[in-house]
Amino acid sequence: MALFAQRLGRLEKRNEFNITDHMAKAEAMGRDLVRLNLGEPDFDSAENINECAMAEIKRGNTHYCDPQGVMPFREAVAGFVSRTRGVEVGPDMVVATAGGKPPIPFSMLTYVDPGDEVIYPSPGFPAYEIWARYAGAVLKPLHLNEAKDFRFDAADLEPLVTRKTKLLVLNSPSNPTGGVLSRDDLKDVARIMLDKAHPDFRILSDEVYEKIIFDGRKHESIMGLPGMREHTVLMNCHSKTYAMTGWRVGYAVLPTVEEARMFRLWSISVYSCTQPFIQMAARQAIIDPVNDEIIKMMRDQFEMRRNRIIPELNRIPGIRCTNPGGAFYALPNVEGACQTIGATEFCRNNKQAPAPATMFQLFALYNHGVATLDRASFGRVGIEGLEYVRISMASSLEQLKAGVERMAAAAEDKKGFAEFIAKPDLWME
Amino acid sequence: MALFAQRLGRLEKRNEFNITDHMAKAEAMGRDLVRLNLGEPDFDSAENINECAMAEIKRGNTHYCDPQGVMPFREAVAGFVSRTRGVEVGPDMVVATAGGKPPIPFSMLTYVDPGDEVIYPSPGFPAYEIWARYAGAVLKPLHLNEAKDFRFDAADLEPLVTRKTKLLVLNSPSNPTGGVLSRDDLKDVARIMLDKAHPDFRILSDEVYEKIIFDGRKHESIMGLPGMREHTVLMNCHSKTYAMTGWRVGYAVLPTVEEARMFRLWSISVYSCTQPFIQMAARQAIIDPVNDEIIKMMRDQFEMRRNRIIPELNRIPGIRCTNPGGAFYALPNVEGACQTIGATEFCRNNKQAPAPATMFQLFALYNHGVATLDRASFGRVGIEGLEYVRISMASSLEQLKAGVERMAAAAEDKKGFAEFIAKPDLWME
Repeated sequence: MALFAQRLGRLEKRNEFNITDHMAKAEAMGRDLVRLNLGEPDFDSAENINECAMAEIKRGNTHYCDPQGVMPFREAVAGFVSRTRGVEVGPDMVVATAGGKPPIPFSMLTYVDPGDEVIYPSPGFPAYEIWARYAGAVLKPLHLNEAKDFRFDAADLEPLVTRKTKLLVLNSPSNPTGGVLSRDDLKDVARIMLDKAHPDFRILSDEVYEKIIFDGRKHESIMGLPGMREHTVLMNCHSKTYAMTGWRVGYAVLPTVEEARMFRLWSISVYSCTQPFIQMAARQAIIDPVNDEIIKMMRDQFEMRRNRIIPELNRIPGIRCTNPGGAFYALPNVEGACQTIGATEFCRNNKQAPAPATMFQLFALYNHGVATLDRASFGRVGIEGLEYVRISMASSLEQLKAGVERMAAAAEDKKGFAEFIAKPDLWME
Repeated sequence: MALFAQRLGRLEKRNEFNITDHMAKAEAMGRDLVRLNLGEPDFDSAENINECAMAEIKRGNTHYCDPQGVMPFREAVAGFVSRTRGVEVGPDMVVATAGGKPPIPFSMLTYVDPGDEVIYPSPGFPAYEIWARYAGAVLKPLHLNEAKDFRFDAADLEPLVTRKTKLLVLNSPSNPTGGVLSRDDLKDVARIMLDKAHPDFRILSDEVYEKIIFDGRKHESIMGLPGMREHTVLMNCHSKTYAMTGWRVGYAVLPTVEEARMFRLWSISVYSCTQPFIQMAARQAIIDPVNDEIIKMMRDQFEMRRNRIIPELNRIPGIRCTNPGGAFYALPNVEGACQTIGATEFCRNNKQAPAPATMFQLFALYNHGVATLDRASFGRVGIEGLEYVRISMASSLEQLKAGVERMAAAAEDKKGFAEFIAKPDLWME
């Protein structure tokens, strides 16, 4: 019996906040940083949303509330989801959550027994693999292929699905790839799952980037396909759509009231309830049409930045980058740069080194002052030889240009890298 | 492979929110209710706290923040805890949490392997037993005895402690009993744990009622005893002290930075972070001396109500109640009333019935319109024959008097109870 329980061995320590310790260290060493690591809009929440929260605080709406969420919020969500997905959803199927993340652990813990199979996109939001592993699932990463613009098709998915497939995670538009699934893609998914998966399968559909989609395309939700609402756990949140990351408010829509009650029970058990005044502000975000304009403004900004930055990335020798169709991330392939500076060879010969992309990430941070996230932050199973870093376009164009310039400098700095590897305290895991 | 994972069988469905469904049902049946069920101050959060939150929202402090908590909040907590416990605590040992509850699951999941022994007060806050069971612990309820004013002493604790005792939960002042531990009590605890428990034992010390303590007594924290800071996980929150239940902000203080990092990792994994503007409001609550006056006013109110209500309860035939030394609960023994109205006999002869106190709770709700919480909401192991209900004194004196009158009416309403048991949809589990 040690101090820490054995289950902590199943709780992966690498996640989207991982780089922050290195950033603090780099800053302490006097490095000024361009921060392209965090998936956070560089806008503040809108005035109408702030005003609503402040009015609710003032009127004393600061007490415990229904752990499933206050009714006005759940009604607004049910209305929004019904309208946009073309399905009938009642407020009893909606559960308010403390941000967009809780539906991931709640889903894995509710549906997945040890030995059940979970399919999730890789690269993907780290919590998918983290919680699937924690739940004891057989991990079946659905590797997204750069050559297909990080979409996947039936031929990719079909071989992974078996009668033991209990949960499939979808995320479109995708973090970190920016890949977008079409309605035809989703039809393939539905067909394959209905044909081959466990009869009680669930799809956890992470649609938190639904409003950030480019080139005039329209967001498609698997919930709206025939027979799919009954299998889909929709997870959504206000963080990206309404620039409300620090408000920690989101929601899940469950296939049945019974399952919604189960998510309510997890909410009670972990954090009792979500702040009622924040839920009212989140309701305001959904129902006030002024926010449609604000969302459009933010999306146009992200699209403009994409249009400017992706070509810049592709001009860097040793780096190439697909054009993301949504979200606000780019996932440049840095394999060439890793070879140029010597990271590939170094990692091949050094068992204590992390992956080449991780070395590139740390080198770019410590020696060139640009913070990115490495491929290993987005799922770790079967990623050998896949060398990518993620940058977030939720930064000003000036910052983005400065960051890309620093990446370019890092990508050819063979001498600097040789010095960097001589400081193992900066990169040894 | 069923829809729900097997671990849900370990997640107890009965908790402090359980009565709310019954309350909605009773109201739908036209019953007006006196609500003495919820552990929530009948005050709003203070203006200085509200104003701070509003100013932070206005200035855009609404983005992701350090998952361990923003530094100004952690510094305020570290200062407060160091000052009041007479120990040295740094901000690196503090973790901000989404209310007071998360440190309970985080502690059980961090320290307790299946088969480890967990000792917790019973009756006690439901999450202790819920999460100990979920973690697979051997459950060792420390039964609090009415005859000892719901304190416990060395003779009660000592036989429960073995080398397999990994975690002991303390809660003083206590929910739901109002019991208060003295410094001598805590010294006994420290001695017994150091002598007999696992060398790496931890004490989860739930001190969320520390400011609500009567009769001029002073709160004592086990953290301040020699050698105990290194074993103690302090959990505290703003819900009760500052009437901030709906704000969902609290904190844990860990014995080591390494353990604080583990709690940070749980926070990241479940909900990413706690709202920065709420943490700043919570900091304001701690540092602005005006709040000391407000706390004193609330505590005086609770004490006045206790002084008025406990004698009223003791005047009811079939009910007796000890005098709580802190918190804002009373836990009347309703065994006599259960016998009078026929609940005891009915439950003895009816396997589908819950415990007599639960029948009394439901009967008092549906037939007499007063909401309380039954003994079974506060831990279920070894409670046969213990017939109590909890009432919260966080209601106006008028409401309390009305509620106690309704309890009195229920306690002698043999005829009504006979009618009530004929409606099993109201009480069958």
